[in-house]
Amino acid sequence: MPAPTAAPASTPLPAARAAGAAAPSGRAPLPVLGRDVTVPLVTGGEVTYAALDYAASAPALQRVWDDVAAYAPHYGSVHRGAGHLSRLSTELFENARRTVAGFLDCRDGDQVVFTRSTTDSLNLLAAALPDDCQVFVFETEHHAALLPWGSPRAAGRGARVTLLDAPDSPQRAVRTLERALAARDPRRPALVCVTGASNVTGELWPVRELAAAAHAHGARIVLDAAQLAPHHAVSVRALDVDWVAFSGHKLYAPFGTGVLAGRADWLREAEPYLAGGGASRRVVRREDGGVDVQWHDGAARHEAGSPNVIGAHAVASACRALTETGFDVLAAHEERLIRTVRDGLADVPEVRFLSLFGDDAPRVGVLSFVVDGWNGSHLAAALSAEYGIGVRDGLFCAHPLLRALLGDDPHHRDECGAPGTAPGGAPLHAVRVSFGAGTPDEHVERFVRAVRDLVREGARRRHRTADGHCVPDTST
Amino acid sequence: MPAPTAAPASTPLPAARAAGAAAPSGRAPLPVLGRDVTVPLVTGGEVTYAALDYAASAPALQRVWDDVAAYAPHYGSVHRGAGHLSRLSTELFENARRTVAGFLDCRDGDQVVFTRSTTDSLNLLAAALPDDCQVFVFETEHHAALLPWGSPRAAGRGARVTLLDAPDSPQRAVRTLERALAARDPRRPALVCVTGASNVTGELWPVRELAAAAHAHGARIVLDAAQLAPHHAVSVRALDVDWVAFSGHKLYAPFGTGVLAGRADWLREAEPYLAGGGASRRVVRREDGGVDVQWHDGAARHEAGSPNVIGAHAVASACRALTETGFDVLAAHEERLIRTVRDGLADVPEVRFLSLFGDDAPRVGVLSFVVDGWNGSHLAAALSAEYGIGVRDGLFCAHPLLRALLGDDPHHRDECGAPGTAPGGAPLHAVRVSFGAGTPDEHVERFVRAVRDLVREGARRRHRTADGHCVPDTST
Repeated sequence: MPAPTAAPASTPLPAARAAGAAAPSGRAPLPVLGRDVTVPLVTGGEVTYAALDYAASAPALQRVWDDVAAYAPHYGSVHRGAGHLSRLSTELFENARRTVAGFLDCRDGDQVVFTRSTTDSLNLLAAALPDDCQVFVFETEHHAALLPWGSPRAAGRGARVTLLDAPDSPQRAVRTLERALAARDPRRPALVCVTGASNVTGELWPVRELAAAAHAHGARIVLDAAQLAPHHAVSVRALDVDWVAFSGHKLYAPFGTGVLAGRADWLREAEPYLAGGGASRRVVRREDGGVDVQWHDGAARHEAGSPNVIGAHAVASACRALTETGFDVLAAHEERLIRTVRDGLADVPEVRFLSLFGDDAPRVGVLSFVVDGWNGSHLAAALSAEYGIGVRDGLFCAHPLLRALLGDDPHHRDECGAPGTAPGGAPLHAVRVSFGAGTPDEHVERFVRAVRDLVREGARRRHRTADGHCVPDTST
Repeated sequence: MPAPTAAPASTPLPAARAAGAAAPSGRAPLPVLGRDVTVPLVTGGEVTYAALDYAASAPALQRVWDDVAAYAPHYGSVHRGAGHLSRLSTELFENARRTVAGFLDCRDGDQVVFTRSTTDSLNLLAAALPDDCQVFVFETEHHAALLPWGSPRAAGRGARVTLLDAPDSPQRAVRTLERALAARDPRRPALVCVTGASNVTGELWPVRELAAAAHAHGARIVLDAAQLAPHHAVSVRALDVDWVAFSGHKLYAPFGTGVLAGRADWLREAEPYLAGGGASRRVVRREDGGVDVQWHDGAARHEAGSPNVIGAHAVASACRALTETGFDVLAAHEERLIRTVRDGLADVPEVRFLSLFGDDAPRVGVLSFVVDGWNGSHLAAALSAEYGIGVRDGLFCAHPLLRALLGDDPHHRDECGAPGTAPGGAPLHAVRVSFGAGTPDEHVERFVRAVRDLVREGARRRHRTADGHCVPDTST
């Protein structure tokens, strides 16, 4: 590539590749890295890997990789050097911030802070809560959205968490929140934290309505968009949320960067998230032996240490690619894949999909299920070993939600007859299949075929090894 | 590359390229990305960029990039999936941990936690201090090592910081520490934080002796190896330090990952650094509406959120490359470059190098200086614009040290006659040149020639623009 010397701020490096237009039916809308990777099967031979764990970590978009590769030789220190590449890197980093602000349709004055992940973003906001804040969060949240409000920094400022019961409909969610907010002490600041799309059921939450309820009761609201942003346009203005958090590694940009974007006031008034260089404007030793520190305002206040410019650039590249492709195109693709899963397994009574709001509720490409007669971990292992399919099993970092969905159902026993085990010994282990912009139809079709095959005949051709694993019986 | 299916744990992906042997004189020992990047000169034409700001961010080793590129198509979720690539990625991540432990010569039982940077690592340790800890730190430290001990989480646990005066010799540093430790309350836990090599002067600190002093007085010690690890072998055992912290972006692996390695006990007993998934083993809603959380022990306790596996893999790759090349080879190369700078500017009386321990003190390839008649920021800008050289100017996130070295010296005026400005208005602005394994002799030779040229004739052909910048006078 040519040296990126005279490019304007909006395009400090030439775009590596234009995003594709609407994909032909069956083809993924956006090419991803690893689409040609093959993996061995325990039954012999190799097969193209079907990455169906997008909800944990999505593969990098080819375009994101190309943008990272184009930039990498021009890497330099951000905010810290006088050299050409340092200035280029600083421009790229700040440009990435503007791209993210545009992607999220932020308000004027909103701040975009680069973090390492959604978990980090929500911990940052928890550390920035005003004194004596009341936090309202549904028990159905991912641990990243459930737990930060009880962290030492939040607790040290007097934060109190109110857990809300799992709702059985979006309307119930709004009513539950309204009731809790109505009962709160209105003299104390309040924050609602809610997901945009469940990492377990994939169901969309009524974010706009929850935001309206929060604001009607004088509370702020933060949107956990980790699962929403890769699949749907997120408009801070239209949803009227105060903050939004998401992760690069779920947005096809797995280079260690996440985002917290939104209102500047709480962030400006908070102690810096990390203490160190970059966040400190002036440090002076006092006569008494201590130090006086003037901290930066703005995003730098919470970005101490050298910024991860490659990670931020990757996130911005993904934002551009998704926007240019169009979320309507992405959603249509995903809808077809969701139907493939639902229709393909509809006549398999052993398969039960997990849902709070009902099977027909709008969702992103994330579906979890249990299978009678199967421990989820064994089913997931068989999908990998026998079909080259990567899914996730377990409790998905959302333990209270899984318990709300499944209870301690005693008949979830695995195909070798032993009870499934989960953290704490509860017989819970679900399987999650998730996909997105890089998923070709074939992957999902293979998944459906595999589950049908395994459920119909799998248990009969498996045995438990001496070390307790349940494996295919290859001797027959 | 072939699918990395059957590779053993020690080499989950094929090595992208063997490290070079001892480099011919003048050549960099290890090739880095960007070595062929050209930048435009304000005087016309282009020149190969001379990256001489390694102390802020070093370019990626070519080998690190190749390893990242080889892995990227196989990216998958770490600790979270059942698929082949998830298991490969988990193995790669945990293998990176072992590689780092070997690189640092850790003790059995030591923990390696992946963070985002040295700043993050030291903030993590600050959050893990036992109650009422006394922290001893020299005022000469980088803000990343100076400030975390006063952060809200540390202060909330009763941490008290004692700042130690800038010493004028390594021996004085040890005596200063010993005296402070002797005066401490021995019933309280204590921690010493010290740099291995100054980010301003490049001087090596007597880490082993400081560790001995700390331990003799019942204190722990953490080594800030951000500037040491890229240049010298760091042995946790030989130095007998309790923890060590370093950054990937200074170790030729700029993918958003840093390291904190060392004693497990304080880390195990501390509240998790971030609250979220990955760190939580079991989460149960209580009858009273709260949640009970069982946290993981081990590194995962402080690594909530999806790990940055690409960043960790990159750090491990750099560790392997540096080890295989040999720090003796790297040190010899750097020594030659240091001599080039010192000898080349010895007869320029306007140039004054900054030093605590004297000009002949052992150092890494980091040198800072001021030039009579020049504001450092203008000199750095001229080096970039007229010679294609990237250095850093400023106070290097070590304000108290810069003041200790320079005072409020009134005759540091810039080449246009105005006082130099720095945060807080003090007329301090130094220039730092730094280099390492990827620096060819030509870059440093060009730097020496450029400084000589600029100092001799530069001020005469510059003028101040209407917006206050000092720029070359191109009209003559």
